Amino acid sequence: MSEVGLYEAMSTLRAVRRLRPDPIPEDVLQRVLEAATWAPTGGNRQPWRIVVVRNGDAKARLATLYAERWKRFAGGYEKLMAGMPEEAAAESRKMLDAGDYLADHFAATPAVLVFCFNPRDMAITDAKLDRISVVGGGSVYPAVQNLLLACRAEGLGCTLTTLLCECESEVQALLGIPEGWGTACAIPIGYPQRSGHGPIRRRPVAKMVYGDHWGEAL
Amino acid sequence: MSEVGLYEAMSTLRAVRRLRPDPIPEDVLQRVLEAATWAPTGGNRQPWRIVVVRNGDAKARLATLYAERWKRFAGGYEKLMAGMPEEAAAESRKMLDAGDYLADHFAATPAVLVFCFNPRDMAITDAKLDRISVVGGGSVYPAVQNLLLACRAEGLGCTLTTLLCECESEVQALLGIPEGWGTACAIPIGYPQRSGHGPIRRRPVAKMVYGDHWGEAL
Repeated sequence: MSEVGLYEAMSTLRAVRRLRPDPIPEDVLQRVLEAATWAPTGGNRQPWRIVVVRNGDAKARLATLYAERWKRFAGGYEKLMAGMPEEAAAESRKMLDAGDYLADHFAATPAVLVFCFNPRDMAITDAKLDRISVVGGGSVYPAVQNLLLACRAEGLGCTLTTLLCECESEVQALLGIPEGWGTACAIPIGYPQRSGHGPIRRRPVAKMVYGDHWGEAL
Repeated sequence: MSEVGLYEAMSTLRAVRRLRPDPIPEDVLQRVLEAATWAPTGGNRQPWRIVVVRNGDAKARLATLYAERWKRFAGGYEKLMAGMPEEAAAESRKMLDAGDYLADHFAATPAVLVFCFNPRDMAITDAKLDRISVVGGGSVYPAVQNLLLACRAEGLGCTLTTLLCECESEVQALLGIPEGWGTACAIPIGYPQRSGHGPIRRRPVAKMVYGDHWGEAL
């Protein structure tokens, strides 16, 4: 297998929400999971685990929890779209349609990867600040990104979802996640229904990066 | 330029803490910054910015803040090492020595990349849970990981540090970061003093991944 280039993979990684139910070969699944293990974590503690959900009953239960939350989220988003310029609203409409598809077919996804983390194994340096903490995510989401990039390399569709975090206690009970472990995201993966990964729309570096001081050009 | 393969980049990305002061060419810097912009974010909002610090006075001030915190962290870590098996203690000793080098030479790093984020532009689904939040990091650290991987591809050493988050208000004042924006990490980058990136030590998939239920083999 000729390996996909790093920049090619990163620049064509899309959120792919329309997935086929076809199973994922074990060797492919192993490669995307191993890619996650390679990511850096604070003190190399690797304070995360993945539960790969393929069991039909468990997926059906996750699907119900997901669909409830998606409907609420999509309803709120549609109200926002009323005030958007036409192009942005059209883009959002496409995202919502694909999101509806995912919510309707969540149980038929071949695998849902639930990322768990243990804050007791992390040095969370922003825990005492007067704002919401994010630093614990610094030892989880690099592994998530590695996994998404590996899906892109293997031709697997995927999307990072965090709606199930809202009902974490139900997910913990369903999957037997022990006390002290939280959930960081759930990633449905599978072969794409349509074209899958491809071109992406992002702001240019000049709008995202400053030089030496906020607001100054690099 | 023949592009580095995705899996090769991910499996050889190390924390490189001994950096040369040589400047980074503008085209190389642009490529690693663009890689960050490609990462997924919730609703494609891209709620992060980078301040690239190359000014000598600003780096010197960050270096002072960093060294104070590093000394405290390293002191605590040395106490932990007393209880470690010999091999783990030797590994930790190497990490601490490299960390000391970074703390002593922080101001001489050619660039320090400070990642900022705005929680008001994020849907933080774990904000109301009875545990510390991480989900905001899901729209920042994938971009951080893209940037680290791009550094690997370009032969630049780098390491994800979060110690400066402890003194966020000082960093905000120094760099003019506005009210409402937090800091997620600071990444010193530069060409390596020694061999730079290479083999990594991580737990195998079988220790990090469960099948359908916590504790069950995939």
